Amino acid sequence: MGALLPVGPVKVIVDLCVVPIGVGVRLAPYVAACQKVLREAGLTIRLHPNGTAIEGEWASVFAAIEACHQALHAMECPRIFTTVTINTRTDKVQSLDDKLASVQALL
Amino acid sequence: MGALLPVGPVKVIVDLCVVPIGVGVRLAPYVAACQKVLREAGLTIRLHPNGTAIEGEWASVFAAIEACHQALHAMECPRIFTTVTINTRTDKVQSLDDKLASVQALL
Amino acid sequence: MGALLPVGPVKVIVDLCVVPIGVGVRLAPYVAACQKVLREAGLTIRLHPNGTAIEGEWASVFAAIEACHQALHAMECPRIFTTVTINTRTDKVQSLDDKLASVQALL
Amino acid sequence: MGALLPVGPVKVIVDLCVVPIGVGVRLAPYVAACQKVLREAGLTIRLHPNGTAIEGEWASVFAAIEACHQALHAMECPRIFTTVTINTRTDKVQSLDDKLASVQALL
Repeated sequence: MGALLPVGPVKVIVDLCVVPIGVGVRLAPYVAACQKVLREAGLTIRLHPNGTAIEGEWASVFAAIEACHQALHAMECPRIFTTVTINTRTDKVQSLDDKLASVQALL
Repeated sequence: MGALLPVGPVKVIVDLCVVPIGVGVRLAPYVAACQKVLREAGLTIRLHPNGTAIEGEWASVFAAIEACHQALHAMECPRIFTTVTINTRTDKVQSLDDKLASVQALL
Repeated sequence: MGALLPVGPVKVIVDLCVVPIGVGVRLAPYVAACQKVLREAGLTIRLHPNGTAIEGEWASVFAAIEACHQALHAMECPRIFTTVTINTRTDKVQSLDDKLASVQALL
Repeated sequence: MGALLPVGPVKVIVDLCVVPIGVGVRLAPYVAACQKVLREAGLTIRLHPNGTAIEGEWASVFAAIEACHQALHAMECPRIFTTVTINTRTDKVQSLDDKLASVQALL
């Protein structure tokens, strides 16, 4: 496996899907509000049909996700269910674009 | 909410992320093998940095995901952890592209 | 890793969380309806605060999850978001109770 | 829906599943290490076959999950894939035990 990289602030790649509950079936306005929160947080993001891929430092990413919840509750959404997948690695530095390219190179 | 659409074969939009365990840290060859299985199944798919968005009928989609597991075990992967999110709705027909566009229209 | 077990019907351990959308904030009646569907399917299940652990053969498990979606749509739920995590392994046979015990033995 | 509760520190109910990658197929020692981190953080937790249900304030919960990643990397795990589901609500205060009981009361 080779030597591990020195540990500083933990860098993460995350996939985020925020599901507002109790506001009917039209969720796009809430998803769009989250996009704005993530952009304003200065994170690298890629919107896809089922969520948003995010790259950043641990603390910034999760503070931004908390801000998404606060923004939606402020829009009178009473309940939120969110899924997050988190990727960290110490063997190499990998961006969202690297992650996608590593698969596409094999197709 | 209005009348529900008639129920036939259930159409689903899925997000899939397959994580092989016990084959080291380089996972791209396994993800690429899954892409081939999904394509050969004739499903509509969109690869993104953290997974694959899939659109199709319930039975076809989950048969294809089972075939991904079988393909990876056949590549001598002893253990697999997969995440799936599933979206179904009876109020309207929605494609992967519609789902993405409904958010992008508000940004 | 040793020899792989022969491949027959794929056995899975799944974690399931079904989130009805467009029916307000009280979701327990829908979760309870899913429990009944899973029990009637004859699957081994363990309800926990955030979902249900399920053990069974691939085809039976996913047919039961589809039946959950159909049951909720029949209860006039217009949209459903479900998360599933799937575990398969060929190196050994493992039950839900084995999986829990393997961790508890180390605490 | 009635008035929303005042917003202070965001309380969350989370389900956590940490999957170490690149350390073989025996994951229980890593899951046990995470349990110790979560306990020492003073969080309310319930281990189940596929993960851990956690109740606490947003900042404490996500700091503890970050500490799980750091603990596993310190155990020479080079790559980690984690799933988290997050529940927040402003319409009422709900504990892990309340959440489970609300379903069990209907079975």
